[in-house]
Amino acid sequence: MNTWGRHIRLSIFGESHGKAIGVIIDGLPAGESIDEERIAVEMSRRAPGGTEFSTARNESDLAEILSGTLNGKTTGAPLCAMIRNNDARSGDYGKAIRPGHADWTALLKYSGHADMRGGGHFSGRLTAPLVFAGALAKQIIGGRGVKVFGRVLSVGNLKDTETPATADEWEKISMARFPASEGVRDAMQALILEAKGEGDSVGGIVEAAALGVPGGCGEPFFGALESVAAAMMFSIPGVKGLEFGGGFALTHMRGSEANDELYVEDGIIRSRTNNNGGILGGISNGAPIILRVAIKPTASIAKVQRTVDPEHMTNVELEIKGRHDPCIAPRATPVVEAGLALSILECMS
Amino acid sequence: MNTWGRHIRLSIFGESHGKAIGVIIDGLPAGESIDEERIAVEMSRRAPGGTEFSTARNESDLAEILSGTLNGKTTGAPLCAMIRNNDARSGDYGKAIRPGHADWTALLKYSGHADMRGGGHFSGRLTAPLVFAGALAKQIIGGRGVKVFGRVLSVGNLKDTETPATADEWEKISMARFPASEGVRDAMQALILEAKGEGDSVGGIVEAAALGVPGGCGEPFFGALESVAAAMMFSIPGVKGLEFGGGFALTHMRGSEANDELYVEDGIIRSRTNNNGGILGGISNGAPIILRVAIKPTASIAKVQRTVDPEHMTNVELEIKGRHDPCIAPRATPVVEAGLALSILECMS
Amino acid sequence: MNTWGRHIRLSIFGESHGKAIGVIIDGLPAGESIDEERIAVEMSRRAPGGTEFSTARNESDLAEILSGTLNGKTTGAPLCAMIRNNDARSGDYGKAIRPGHADWTALLKYSGHADMRGGGHFSGRLTAPLVFAGALAKQIIGGRGVKVFGRVLSVGNLKDTETPATADEWEKISMARFPASEGVRDAMQALILEAKGEGDSVGGIVEAAALGVPGGCGEPFFGALESVAAAMMFSIPGVKGLEFGGGFALTHMRGSEANDELYVEDGIIRSRTNNNGGILGGISNGAPIILRVAIKPTASIAKVQRTVDPEHMTNVELEIKGRHDPCIAPRATPVVEAGLALSILECMS
Amino acid sequence: MNTWGRHIRLSIFGESHGKAIGVIIDGLPAGESIDEERIAVEMSRRAPGGTEFSTARNESDLAEILSGTLNGKTTGAPLCAMIRNNDARSGDYGKAIRPGHADWTALLKYSGHADMRGGGHFSGRLTAPLVFAGALAKQIIGGRGVKVFGRVLSVGNLKDTETPATADEWEKISMARFPASEGVRDAMQALILEAKGEGDSVGGIVEAAALGVPGGCGEPFFGALESVAAAMMFSIPGVKGLEFGGGFALTHMRGSEANDELYVEDGIIRSRTNNNGGILGGISNGAPIILRVAIKPTASIAKVQRTVDPEHMTNVELEIKGRHDPCIAPRATPVVEAGLALSILECMS
Repeated sequence: MNTWGRHIRLSIFGESHGKAIGVIIDGLPAGESIDEERIAVEMSRRAPGGTEFSTARNESDLAEILSGTLNGKTTGAPLCAMIRNNDARSGDYGKAIRPGHADWTALLKYSGHADMRGGGHFSGRLTAPLVFAGALAKQIIGGRGVKVFGRVLSVGNLKDTETPATADEWEKISMARFPASEGVRDAMQALILEAKGEGDSVGGIVEAAALGVPGGCGEPFFGALESVAAAMMFSIPGVKGLEFGGGFALTHMRGSEANDELYVEDGIIRSRTNNNGGILGGISNGAPIILRVAIKPTASIAKVQRTVDPEHMTNVELEIKGRHDPCIAPRATPVVEAGLALSILECMS
Repeated sequence: MNTWGRHIRLSIFGESHGKAIGVIIDGLPAGESIDEERIAVEMSRRAPGGTEFSTARNESDLAEILSGTLNGKTTGAPLCAMIRNNDARSGDYGKAIRPGHADWTALLKYSGHADMRGGGHFSGRLTAPLVFAGALAKQIIGGRGVKVFGRVLSVGNLKDTETPATADEWEKISMARFPASEGVRDAMQALILEAKGEGDSVGGIVEAAALGVPGGCGEPFFGALESVAAAMMFSIPGVKGLEFGGGFALTHMRGSEANDELYVEDGIIRSRTNNNGGILGGISNGAPIILRVAIKPTASIAKVQRTVDPEHMTNVELEIKGRHDPCIAPRATPVVEAGLALSILECMS
Repeated sequence: MNTWGRHIRLSIFGESHGKAIGVIIDGLPAGESIDEERIAVEMSRRAPGGTEFSTARNESDLAEILSGTLNGKTTGAPLCAMIRNNDARSGDYGKAIRPGHADWTALLKYSGHADMRGGGHFSGRLTAPLVFAGALAKQIIGGRGVKVFGRVLSVGNLKDTETPATADEWEKISMARFPASEGVRDAMQALILEAKGEGDSVGGIVEAAALGVPGGCGEPFFGALESVAAAMMFSIPGVKGLEFGGGFALTHMRGSEANDELYVEDGIIRSRTNNNGGILGGISNGAPIILRVAIKPTASIAKVQRTVDPEHMTNVELEIKGRHDPCIAPRATPVVEAGLALSILECMS
Repeated sequence: MNTWGRHIRLSIFGESHGKAIGVIIDGLPAGESIDEERIAVEMSRRAPGGTEFSTARNESDLAEILSGTLNGKTTGAPLCAMIRNNDARSGDYGKAIRPGHADWTALLKYSGHADMRGGGHFSGRLTAPLVFAGALAKQIIGGRGVKVFGRVLSVGNLKDTETPATADEWEKISMARFPASEGVRDAMQALILEAKGEGDSVGGIVEAAALGVPGGCGEPFFGALESVAAAMMFSIPGVKGLEFGGGFALTHMRGSEANDELYVEDGIIRSRTNNNGGILGGISNGAPIILRVAIKPTASIAKVQRTVDPEHMTNVELEIKGRHDPCIAPRATPVVEAGLALSILECMS
């Protein structure tokens, strides 16, 4: 269903071309200061911006807080934020099933009753409320010493081989207009424009890190920090893979290499490496939480595709017009960060 | 926490060297025939068997059903199954933190109160109840035309390049003593023995497939079939990555390649490819559900490792004795299948 | 937390004098026709109306549906409805703790951060979204043959001794401006006015009935239809008691009297009496579901009360000004009906 | 379903004449000392004891803890306790529907697949695991200064008019073999024996109190302490009513009487009366939590009853043989206490 979390409970609503989208966040502690300026910054990181790398749709993406705050602080009551939809051009969308989209499965599940204009409830636009909620989470866990960052690790075959070494480096990359290391940023953008020029799209990997997470967060089994974060990450449209720490690369290692050896320093137990991405047995160990998310190429492309008109059950060809990001990874970066920040807040609550 | 599922609710309990482990499964439909023989087969696939590829620990792994069935059929009441622990040698385990294990994080979370003998509640032994529950799920969804299989896709750098083409091929591979394609089986086993010979371990990838899943299962957002399955998969000890369909490889594709084009055949909509692994927008589309799980090398190895004695907070060296699988992937295969079968039952309920 | 339901999930938000209040309802089937006119009727039954029996506050109580419907039908996506607050006079509320209100406990729980203007998140105004959700539920279960009604059974010591015999009788009473039997209506209103004249308030009992509920709804134990409804009913401000069927009066009966004897009629099993209120073992038996809710006297009264100023921790006297219903029972009637309708929809889903 | 609680999660299993019944309790803090002696005392308070007031069935009711403890302390992992069924005489139960029992509704819900021997999963025997869990809860909250007591307030028309004034008085009454005030105990027992002598049964009211609950426990709306406790109480077989504080009697009061006036004493806010039963707005205020539960007369009676044979769909007469308590209230007292203790632990977690 549309709810997530046991201590911090999110409820998402809205359709892309409906009246509004939004989120209720329950379980926030009372008395937390909310900096709306910083929320707006996070929202703008995800918002489509009119650059060549993102759709030209001019969403205002201004979240109105309807409840749960007073004088800039949380009240302890559920916080609802709403974002009006004000630039929906329904005419842009036709009746053929768009390959790679939820059009097909929505039809199977809702028998034609779903509002699929602009992707409806399945639209990437629904990640805006997630970013809003994540911005709150970042502020709250920020006050407890946790920082969350993200970056585009790869676009197509082009992969960043460097790793940010400090929180400052992470922050610089994370907050850039195109959130990737300077060394690869231009090349990534060129690759995206190339795909766009061909009426096509390209996939990518987003990496996120949480620094300063205290040990002991999460639970064994179904309450594992990885399980909590995974349920969140796989709800983000376009995500088809997720790994923590060494992830799939760990399968190529020997145990003697993969095991993070421990040592005592200043009375604290630390690990020499972090192949487990800060999580052992579902519980944080104090090392940075590292995860990577595989994002498929944007499903909406200009190129002609073969598909089906479900009303007449005929094979047809489809050219998708309208405005679409040729690569979702850059705008997905703050969404993945938001999901990680919420997961950590959940496990710290 | 230890519960999973909204329609089918699992509650897991037990510690490796405690009295018993087990599971309650609630929400099962009444009147489903339970074939205990087939449950035993599934249990034996996971059980340590005394071959060179698995631990020599002689667990009986006989599940006793305590409730929820009558005359071989489900009653609709919660079904509890219990497995006694009867071969625990606590002496095998010392006091130094075993690198790569939950020893460290259990200490952080439970302040020394956890029963960590044999890995305690974090032990791979806790997957036995999952396999039990999965065996039930397989029988129930089997009656609705769904078949679930699994295989070892890779061990270390050795990857199977072939893909089973039919349900029969899948079944043959899946039910083999070492569940991998004949073409790579021997080489995989040799690789595992090589690691074992060095007092080391090796990782691998398990792939699972569900054939015959009807379209329309799952929900958008947090109830996505991927989210439901992910929460389950990341609760399996040793899992550090998960992907659906093309997964991470999709990030290397163009949209025109990754999108599964559609066509009408015999009045049914089908896709020419299955890069989305049978799931779009969190909902099944009728194509096979395909997922892959990255399993890290067994953390328990014989080789000397540097670690910490937490009682004295000193750096120490550790040689882990006792019986451990040098590669978890083969025995994890039925566990991943179980998790997938349960996820599908949940989404079909 | 602010969520209720497993199949039909409600999430409530809002504070009395904040920007808006509202509800998300998830899990509604797709394709259900929504009659906004009938929703408005239900909302107006709860809304304060300017009569002598209810507060003069002019809330518009117009719910705006933000998502989840298209062309008057549910889409299957979460439905969010919002009601703006537009007539809040914060000046009406002072700083002394109002006896019988949540002012005291909100202070204990939220350390002064709660927005308690007008009762904040604890306000009876929060029942408006419940009535909205209940109106939807009534329409959906109405399509399956279930009708839900309510009435004021007692005000103070004045109790209605008659019982509606048919759905038509129930409907007539339920939909009256003052939802009580004609025989007691005037006397009840007089009693309420008498209390009001003394600057005081009076309690009452609301009875609700659901006719046509099919057998087999609900579950044993914590999923009992009674448990599901109880969690809902006790969330309604002012409710301090709940009983099903004979309820507390059953404790005065012998088993031979209380047991509902059965007989076969037209191939259907029926009971001669309905002391169990249509529920046995937590599951509906096909007889009318009957429940009764005890509503305490309105806490806000004009009479001088002794209380505490928490800021100065001094004993003070308080006269509550402003507009308050001298008896909540009439306006609570549609709220209790809504809660029952939602509970039945939950258990039929 | 069979799970309850968000922080403390109970999962109940078992059927009266199956192999075993039991409970998993998850979310218990690690390191809590468990006194098995005191658990046994609680279990024996509920257990049928061979006196004239309870059934002669000789259940051992010895709970075996299978997991979650080590050296007498909780480990933080899920605690599973199992009670074997060893005295089931299935022959005692026939095929006619027993009026007032779940036989009828189980048939409607499970289409004849339910194991209804001895009441199956609906049996009062399933309250034994609740008492076990409650005994743990009592010990844990006891360590935080909370004491929970219960008593039989009324049997039939015979009602205790006195109220225990201190914790010592409560304890004395609560722990008596027949948990009622000395002044009414003999009369209550006589009344029960009278009903028994007539082959009949009688109902009663159980009152429970929690002393020392800190303010601020519980949440507004669906997380109200009342809602949490209500979902628990209505899962207890035979419960048909529940009230907090003044409960239904509050409906006869004026607001000026019902409102609990406040005053400051020793720097603490207190109320002069406790009509709200220690809960305002769903949150505890520090005053004793008081609740009352209406328990219907035992459904199993020796007297001839008219009912239906569902196999042949004929009207039949039924004489229930076997051993049944003529009044459930005394044995239900520790069950209600357990439910209250668990509810408070849940809200304090």
